[in-house]
Amino acid sequence: MPSRREFLWTTGVTLTRAMAPALAAQAGEGTIDATRLRRRLEGLSRFGRPAGGSFADGVSRVAYSDADVAARAWLLDEIRGAGLTPRLDAAGNIFARTGGRADAPPILIGSHIDSVPNGGNFDGDLGTLAALDVLQAVASAGVTTTHPLELVVWAHEESTAFGRGTACSRIVGGDLKAGDLDQEWNGMTRREALRRIGGDPDRIETAVARPGAWHAYVELHIEQGGTLDTAGVPIGVVEGIVAIHRYDVTIEGMANHAGTTPMDARQDALVAASQLVLAVRRVAAARQGRQVGTVGRLDVQPNSPNVVPGKVVLSVEFRDLSPRVLDGLGEALRAEAAAIARDTRTTIDLRLASTNPPAPAHAGVMAAIQAAAARRDLQSRVLPSGAGHDAQMIAGLCPMGMIFVPSVGGISHSPREFTRWDDCVRGAQALLDTALVLDRRDSV
Amino acid sequence: MPSRREFLWTTGVTLTRAMAPALAAQAGEGTIDATRLRRRLEGLSRFGRPAGGSFADGVSRVAYSDADVAARAWLLDEIRGAGLTPRLDAAGNIFARTGGRADAPPILIGSHIDSVPNGGNFDGDLGTLAALDVLQAVASAGVTTTHPLELVVWAHEESTAFGRGTACSRIVGGDLKAGDLDQEWNGMTRREALRRIGGDPDRIETAVARPGAWHAYVELHIEQGGTLDTAGVPIGVVEGIVAIHRYDVTIEGMANHAGTTPMDARQDALVAASQLVLAVRRVAAARQGRQVGTVGRLDVQPNSPNVVPGKVVLSVEFRDLSPRVLDGLGEALRAEAAAIARDTRTTIDLRLASTNPPAPAHAGVMAAIQAAAARRDLQSRVLPSGAGHDAQMIAGLCPMGMIFVPSVGGISHSPREFTRWDDCVRGAQALLDTALVLDRRDSV
Repeated sequence: MPSRREFLWTTGVTLTRAMAPALAAQAGEGTIDATRLRRRLEGLSRFGRPAGGSFADGVSRVAYSDADVAARAWLLDEIRGAGLTPRLDAAGNIFARTGGRADAPPILIGSHIDSVPNGGNFDGDLGTLAALDVLQAVASAGVTTTHPLELVVWAHEESTAFGRGTACSRIVGGDLKAGDLDQEWNGMTRREALRRIGGDPDRIETAVARPGAWHAYVELHIEQGGTLDTAGVPIGVVEGIVAIHRYDVTIEGMANHAGTTPMDARQDALVAASQLVLAVRRVAAARQGRQVGTVGRLDVQPNSPNVVPGKVVLSVEFRDLSPRVLDGLGEALRAEAAAIARDTRTTIDLRLASTNPPAPAHAGVMAAIQAAAARRDLQSRVLPSGAGHDAQMIAGLCPMGMIFVPSVGGISHSPREFTRWDDCVRGAQALLDTALVLDRRDSV
Repeated sequence: MPSRREFLWTTGVTLTRAMAPALAAQAGEGTIDATRLRRRLEGLSRFGRPAGGSFADGVSRVAYSDADVAARAWLLDEIRGAGLTPRLDAAGNIFARTGGRADAPPILIGSHIDSVPNGGNFDGDLGTLAALDVLQAVASAGVTTTHPLELVVWAHEESTAFGRGTACSRIVGGDLKAGDLDQEWNGMTRREALRRIGGDPDRIETAVARPGAWHAYVELHIEQGGTLDTAGVPIGVVEGIVAIHRYDVTIEGMANHAGTTPMDARQDALVAASQLVLAVRRVAAARQGRQVGTVGRLDVQPNSPNVVPGKVVLSVEFRDLSPRVLDGLGEALRAEAAAIARDTRTTIDLRLASTNPPAPAHAGVMAAIQAAAARRDLQSRVLPSGAGHDAQMIAGLCPMGMIFVPSVGGISHSPREFTRWDDCVRGAQALLDTALVLDRRDSV
């Protein structure tokens, strides 16, 4: 294991050698209450838990569901119980602040509490409840900060409700188009959904924040991958949230009788699709780097055992920090698809359905996180976030950074999602220390 | 093109050289009424036609549906209008006979009129209405036969209703087990379904026929494949209905986040499934012969663009006249599956879900069909039936044979299913002539 100094210099981030120790020395006091943090994580886990289940059975707390509404009410009580005054914006996001000067922009910390169906108890929950604990710990330690510390609980982060690009943090980031509030999902419009959680869709534009509204934004989150767990490193310093290119692919062959159509007369759309699935994997693995390529959805028509498949619709997703790398992967896949279509006598329509730009973390926030980890003698490692987060919506408004803690076995979006309690506390403490490091700097 | 004599000797069936011309010479008279046959095919096509559609839009006339019930009523009227007296057995199969001696077992000819959803107007319909025309044509030509000619309209041939192995011809063949009538589909039991079409489930055992109940069974059907159409041969002489081995395959990997799970850490069930789909094709194509292998159904879980697939369930079907060939294909696939599971770190459970035995056609009936074709100077070709038919259920009761006519482009189970009107008439005439050839023989 490298020494505390060494690992700081080997993370690959552009820091001046003098920067990190200086930042660490400036950090104030305040200690996370491990018992309180765990009590709240277990308390929150009851909302959306399968009937008769336990903490280990995960949660289904989709945004705007009854479970979500009940969990938000519980959380508002916890915030009030901590001596804070919660405030809702028009998008249903919850804010609460403590300390600082009235003329100084707050340091924003938090995450979300909605989940995917059959999700786990750490994705979002940890970052939210750790941020609440940070506000309490700093206040009870009597630490005076220049900048108010502000908790945020972003409403509706997971793309289950209303699909991708509808998270409430996106509204704060200024992304709201005509008709968005009329979108329907699960028998309700987004307008109605926002009302369900106490938002005010008629004044939705008041939720948009101006650049500079915050001194910085820091989000603690579980890694959702296995890099930190495998390496035994407790603190991840996120260098950015990857860009995503998603393709909708339609393969047309010819549906025909599985008994009467000779092998050489077939135009089997599933044979073509299978070749494409393997091509996605080959293309993504063909170059050095952390890029990933996935076919996660695939639907066969008519999908009957005795009919040669006539049509397959599938999704392809590439992710990397560099959009240029993603363009290259898309081009390579197009070439493969053309060859597959020729060989299988099918047509393959490969359409770029959506692109998400990357959101680089701010070098100053990264340095503050590294300094905070160093202060507690915790090893840290710089890594990209392959998953999307609320942080990427806020990156345009203020310096943004994220702290990752290890996910056991890299499992997430599953009831088996787990982060060791010690790692939860280490992450929460790093969040507190990072906030105080950032507070002492006029400019992040 | 070979001469009329030559092709008879080159079809590969075991015939004595003397047999076919002798049979042809025995055939009597009687001519199919092409106008009447087409009128009936077009008349029947109205039942189950898409609203506002035409003949070219096909039919959805699933067994026991309102469309099927209405079509059967129309057909009963046509049968009565032809001067025949229809009779229903307890399974809802319709019979009607003409001519012959009371002590001679009838020659049974016919097919079915139910369809798959979005099916065509020839699968079953042609064989049924051609058989009705045969009875009329023979009667009106004043031909005296030893054996009565008996029309059958098998109820519920397609496996849409109640799934595979539930066709009403199967009941006649003696295959009925305890509980079968309690099976549920589409909100009704088989018992209720049989009542819908005039059957009598309380006396279902009376529908079972004794061996020798018929002198022979001959079914005219469209090929549903492209062999005859491609070769330009108007008459197919079916050598048998293939055996089917069907496997249910479950592949278990690990569902995980598509953004945070590195390529080399994945256990992607869809990658494994794709390799298996290609292995099925490779295995089926690896040996000489007409065997086919198909993955027609494939379901991904959780089937979300941003989740590495954790589980895939799929079907594999192999068909060939020889069960031994099918066993070999199954063994070869198991070996491939084991290698794929190792490579992808998944588990692949490959379970033989059902086996259908082959149903060889009777050499005497095949010879009669060849003779009938030769009599009209029509080229014929011996070929297997890759599709299942009512004929296979009756093969255990009496000598069985089938006549195929060309399917344009080999398309079937589709609104685009089509057989040229001339070919329909040629097939119907061959059915008539075959019946008369068989009538003149004491033993088929």
